[in-house]
Amino acid sequence: MNRGFASDNNAGVHPNILKAIEQANRGHVVGYGDDPYTQEAIALFKKEFGQDTEVFFVFNGTGANVLALSSATNSFNSIICADTAHIQVDECGAPEKLTGCKLLPVPSQKGKITPEGIKQYLHGFDFEHHSQPRVISISQVTELGTVYALEEIKAITALAHEYGLLVHMDGARLANAAVALNLPFRDFTRDAGIDMLSFGGTKNGLLMGEAVLFFNPDLTKYTKYIRKQNMQLFSKMRFVGAQFLAYFKNELWKTNAQHANQMAKLLEREILKLGKVQLTQETEANGVFAIVPTKIIPKLQEEYFFYVWDESRSEVRWMTSFDTTEEDIHGFVKLIDRLI
Amino acid sequence: MNRGFASDNNAGVHPNILKAIEQANRGHVVGYGDDPYTQEAIALFKKEFGQDTEVFFVFNGTGANVLALSSATNSFNSIICADTAHIQVDECGAPEKLTGCKLLPVPSQKGKITPEGIKQYLHGFDFEHHSQPRVISISQVTELGTVYALEEIKAITALAHEYGLLVHMDGARLANAAVALNLPFRDFTRDAGIDMLSFGGTKNGLLMGEAVLFFNPDLTKYTKYIRKQNMQLFSKMRFVGAQFLAYFKNELWKTNAQHANQMAKLLEREILKLGKVQLTQETEANGVFAIVPTKIIPKLQEEYFFYVWDESRSEVRWMTSFDTTEEDIHGFVKLIDRLI
Amino acid sequence: MNRGFASDNNAGVHPNILKAIEQANRGHVVGYGDDPYTQEAIALFKKEFGQDTEVFFVFNGTGANVLALSSATNSFNSIICADTAHIQVDECGAPEKLTGCKLLPVPSQKGKITPEGIKQYLHGFDFEHHSQPRVISISQVTELGTVYALEEIKAITALAHEYGLLVHMDGARLANAAVALNLPFRDFTRDAGIDMLSFGGTKNGLLMGEAVLFFNPDLTKYTKYIRKQNMQLFSKMRFVGAQFLAYFKNELWKTNAQHANQMAKLLEREILKLGKVQLTQETEANGVFAIVPTKIIPKLQEEYFFYVWDESRSEVRWMTSFDTTEEDIHGFVKLIDRLI
Amino acid sequence: MNRGFASDNNAGVHPNILKAIEQANRGHVVGYGDDPYTQEAIALFKKEFGQDTEVFFVFNGTGANVLALSSATNSFNSIICADTAHIQVDECGAPEKLTGCKLLPVPSQKGKITPEGIKQYLHGFDFEHHSQPRVISISQVTELGTVYALEEIKAITALAHEYGLLVHMDGARLANAAVALNLPFRDFTRDAGIDMLSFGGTKNGLLMGEAVLFFNPDLTKYTKYIRKQNMQLFSKMRFVGAQFLAYFKNELWKTNAQHANQMAKLLEREILKLGKVQLTQETEANGVFAIVPTKIIPKLQEEYFFYVWDESRSEVRWMTSFDTTEEDIHGFVKLIDRLI
Repeated sequence: MNRGFASDNNAGVHPNILKAIEQANRGHVVGYGDDPYTQEAIALFKKEFGQDTEVFFVFNGTGANVLALSSATNSFNSIICADTAHIQVDECGAPEKLTGCKLLPVPSQKGKITPEGIKQYLHGFDFEHHSQPRVISISQVTELGTVYALEEIKAITALAHEYGLLVHMDGARLANAAVALNLPFRDFTRDAGIDMLSFGGTKNGLLMGEAVLFFNPDLTKYTKYIRKQNMQLFSKMRFVGAQFLAYFKNELWKTNAQHANQMAKLLEREILKLGKVQLTQETEANGVFAIVPTKIIPKLQEEYFFYVWDESRSEVRWMTSFDTTEEDIHGFVKLIDRLI
Repeated sequence: MNRGFASDNNAGVHPNILKAIEQANRGHVVGYGDDPYTQEAIALFKKEFGQDTEVFFVFNGTGANVLALSSATNSFNSIICADTAHIQVDECGAPEKLTGCKLLPVPSQKGKITPEGIKQYLHGFDFEHHSQPRVISISQVTELGTVYALEEIKAITALAHEYGLLVHMDGARLANAAVALNLPFRDFTRDAGIDMLSFGGTKNGLLMGEAVLFFNPDLTKYTKYIRKQNMQLFSKMRFVGAQFLAYFKNELWKTNAQHANQMAKLLEREILKLGKVQLTQETEANGVFAIVPTKIIPKLQEEYFFYVWDESRSEVRWMTSFDTTEEDIHGFVKLIDRLI
Repeated sequence: MNRGFASDNNAGVHPNILKAIEQANRGHVVGYGDDPYTQEAIALFKKEFGQDTEVFFVFNGTGANVLALSSATNSFNSIICADTAHIQVDECGAPEKLTGCKLLPVPSQKGKITPEGIKQYLHGFDFEHHSQPRVISISQVTELGTVYALEEIKAITALAHEYGLLVHMDGARLANAAVALNLPFRDFTRDAGIDMLSFGGTKNGLLMGEAVLFFNPDLTKYTKYIRKQNMQLFSKMRFVGAQFLAYFKNELWKTNAQHANQMAKLLEREILKLGKVQLTQETEANGVFAIVPTKIIPKLQEEYFFYVWDESRSEVRWMTSFDTTEEDIHGFVKLIDRLI
Repeated sequence: MNRGFASDNNAGVHPNILKAIEQANRGHVVGYGDDPYTQEAIALFKKEFGQDTEVFFVFNGTGANVLALSSATNSFNSIICADTAHIQVDECGAPEKLTGCKLLPVPSQKGKITPEGIKQYLHGFDFEHHSQPRVISISQVTELGTVYALEEIKAITALAHEYGLLVHMDGARLANAAVALNLPFRDFTRDAGIDMLSFGGTKNGLLMGEAVLFFNPDLTKYTKYIRKQNMQLFSKMRFVGAQFLAYFKNELWKTNAQHANQMAKLLEREILKLGKVQLTQETEANGVFAIVPTKIIPKLQEEYFFYVWDESRSEVRWMTSFDTTEEDIHGFVKLIDRLI
């Protein structure tokens, strides 16, 4: 099978990451995070995001989001998010079951929400009949491949803080956003008012492992228990720590994300050149959304696997990743050209 | 730091397992389990346990136990287990929170429970004020390093089935039990009446990954949703599948477990020879329990890390693993000898 | 304080209901529902709705809704409802916490949802990343005082059943709807395809007590446990049974609801006559919605208490009840006239 | 049917209580507790227990216990209680499901637990693998009809507070305990170190209604939301408030409980006189426990209903209540005499 465009998690592990795992595979270390690899990786995160950042590693993206949200909420709270958010449509109700909270979807434009859309939910405070708004969650990169501009983020965090709410960022593809914005991580997260961050690794070359970052230590009083009770505490934790060490070394995260984003741009350009396929989103990170004739989809998928995004209008999603090659792109576009 | 005796999960990854991960790191495959590695690994489990076995991979041991229990219960059920069970004392209440069920601890002898102890809870059926008993869960190897004999298991499953209950086996160290019993996995699980099995890998040389096996397909109607909602669905699943392929190849699981058990036996023998330390459990698998003078514990731990099991009587637990060497044992015993 | 227009649950208990409680207050009966009053009340419901109807009494409306929804769902399901639904905005997240499900709000028109609006959520079946749609819940009377026509209900239940979903009706004000539609209860519930019904009593003259009706006995296999575990099982149950006996006797429910609806109509007429106040909903049952000058609201509320519905546009809600009098209406309208 | 001895909740409502409901049935008042009856009832509780007591009314006993426990715990906590506790054996797992906590049963003597029994669970603090002990819950009167002496309570609360835990008292039959101890409520609750109290009403003459009292206002920051989300907020709350007003008026609670306790004592005396039946507990409040020949139980139950407590040894439980008469006792004992 060719490398496809189904998801950045259909890619494997970057060689440097795998090598780091091998190198950490020496002797015994204490389990569950009290090992030098994990501690060093936490130190790198603190360097990147500020010394008082609290860092917790988990297995996967849903685990990261739920850990962040659980640490900040009680079951009678509500969580406001985009109607396209991963926590709303792709986590099988994990946030509701595991936090007990109500999720309130805001109609989104290009995967983004705005203060105006959020405001409809900012009422009923103190009224016991009403789930109490507590967190606004945004995805960066969004599920539609777009990227919030710095000002868009600040507008949301300002609104949130005005009302005493917290802001969570689902950064499953945070590296792709950092590259797209050409900003250090900290600038468009902590310094833009984000309170809790799911910092993704798996979609950008890790075997598995995500970090949850809290920029307000008050939120983490019970986080270690929440992580364990929600089954996200890894016994051989050193192997997550070691991966993140390699991820930050020589900015591997940036190399990988830059490449993925460039491949998406290339795909966009080539598709536009073709002049036969309509793109439905701007390509700001590593996802390309397009409407293609329904009848060619199965044949395309046979050679380059990808997912249909919206069946009703024959919209598909093509994701590039750190290991996508120019040949992949050209081969794919050629095939499209031939099939249409 | 020397290799210690803290836990079999303080060990790293067996080289064959790591090699399998590397070899699976080729190109793209579909995520979440629809890949050839995962499918082949499932086939191996079916070969081992019967073709109608249903197999689900998860991240960790708590995840395995909760997935098994969730698939078989409603929130108004109760789960009967040993007072020393991992699900009772080591999972921070994950089973209660995630299943909603009541856990009913049975006083155990050497980590084991018996039909007689279980019977105290087998009443109140059909009575809505009472959590309805639904599952009996036993650990094999137990948390005290002992192993249920085949007849002990059958006595429990017979009682359970007489009352319409199911039996779950927490097999975080199942390979060590298989070696201790010198029986194929199937003989003392499925064929002994077990309905759901947590089949451990991490404590016997895997990087991470456990399997949940169901011997009654009726129980798995919703298991895939339960796994996802409880955050135990791995995106790059091939890397768990690949590990289990290596785990079964040339019976690596047996080589590893045999070695760990032998090292525990060696440790037991050497300690007995010493004549200064009292052992508190029979060494049937890869754990040795002993009472050592409280004041030497910190010094011992400095060179060979391990955990205190019961502070009140200065009882400690020493676990051996696939990579424990005879030198480790001799060095450790010598140190004990010197410190006492 | 005058009788106000805040809510039909600010009214007290109808005298016949209170008398029934007194009459049931003789000697001892078995608790928790195994008494003749409860059994007779259940028989009346079966007569009204069909002999195979299953009937469960609970304390309050939220309890009724959650019992119905819990009996029909697993935690990985979703529940589709109006964005104005009581379960969405007035129960402090009880449905999410207690069922674990995701609630999916459909933008409503006059408090109603339509097949077209529902369809956006009817996808992702069998896909484990996605909360599985299981129940559509509609309110009759709606939270905006409107009433679904028979055909509107049937369109929704037909769609639901086509997709294998169930339909729940929140009938906190079901009697008011029956009067508005001039139909027997059964016609616009069970016979219109409704699967589970919250049958309200408290808002129409009971002290407290609601019934949950299931028209498919398969759904009630575990309902008695769910009721108990969710703390909705009343020990002195006979006093709910006795109230419903009085409620059905000589169609007290109809007398009460008819009166309440008529008083709302009278209020609507008098307000329209006034020509100074804009009504925002058609008055189909016992609620009147109007926009009144913000500054007169506090003074109005002092004499006749009511709630502001939508602060942003100064919309208020006036509910009438079984004990509202024509004098109440005229006094209130006169006051409005004077204040504007 | 004769008045039986099944439970104090098989009795009806005390006439004064019913009269209070009637008298509160005048005009409209605001729902959900913002009415004068509720406020006055709260004031009475504050007078009895101290002005900074926080008071929340709920529907039933399980609701009271869960509200108290939920306000004081997070899901990763554990709750220590007697193996016979109502929260452990009679609430269908409501505490586990609704708090997410682990319940840890302590083997009890005569329904009571002691510091020594509790201590086995006071370890693992700060250790994330372990449910963190947070609350000790005791029942006063116990489920075996016994009453904790003041010193027994203080020993438990002292231990709890030493370890930073809180103590909850399940006072479903608190009035019977107050009479048995001949102490004001406050002396053996708040002043004995109790932090949260379920104050029962239903079993001593109320139609329905319990109060939850918090003696540490920090615990109630979110209690109003917890009550609503757990479906224990009564719309026509005035009718609970009114009942408690009558309950305290002229110490009706004491008259009722004193009578019930005296009837139990009379029953005990008459049974002992008979010399044919063995009592298994001391009769300290309003419950009598006895072993009677299995074969006479059905005939006895036909005329005076009661429950078998422990089938395995033919032990039965006889509860007296505020309306039990001396004739009931004599008739019952005569029947026993005749049947044996």
